[in-house]
Amino acid sequence: MKVKGNFWIEKNEKSFLGKGRIELLKKIDRYGSISKAAKEMKMSYKAAWDAVDIMNKMAKKQVVEKISGGKGGGGTRLTDYGKELINIFETAENNFKNCLEEIERFLNNKI
Amino acid sequence: MKVKGNFWIEKNEKSFLGKGRIELLKKIDRYGSISKAAKEMKMSYKAAWDAVDIMNKMAKKQVVEKISGGKGGGGTRLTDYGKELINIFETAENNFKNCLEEIERFLNNKI
Repeated sequence: MKVKGNFWIEKNEKSFLGKGRIELLKKIDRYGSISKAAKEMKMSYKAAWDAVDIMNKMAKKQVVEKISGGKGGGGTRLTDYGKELINIFETAENNFKNCLEEIERFLNNKI
Repeated sequence: MKVKGNFWIEKNEKSFLGKGRIELLKKIDRYGSISKAAKEMKMSYKAAWDAVDIMNKMAKKQVVEKISGGKGGGGTRLTDYGKELINIFETAENNFKNCLEEIERFLNNKI
């Protein structure tokens, strides 16, 4: 018997952060490009860009920023706050996993 | 900022119990009829019956049983074990809500 679940963070009744958006941020951090990140996530560029735009607008500080110039002609990168958000979310995710395990222990033998 | 989430119970990688099925059981308990319960849940009779069948097969003991005869020509009722399942699930649900609140307190000010 297994207890499964998921969680997400809302602000003003609107979805702000969940597993999917955090994964998108991590891929943007890895590839320095929204379009590469979108491709890896198997989502459209528009969907990825919209998600980034929503996060940037809803977060206390900017999460993803454009960088211009340089050899590659610029790109996109996570801000320090964006990296912090990933860490905070992953800590919350660990707490959540512990919760599910605790519920599983409670249910065990009972169900 | 709000933390939202849901959870469900799997057995052998298959979904066994979640909020929806518990609601269905509660309505079967109230109306003594799968078809009335299905109507209230806005689901088809087949979907409701399939859900009941799965629960009966996956649970340790029978959850829903047919009763025959009597004035109304029989019907359906929750077994004692079915009622126990509802109580157990609702306790788990309370634990889960507490977990989400704890995560919310952790995230507060951070996000």
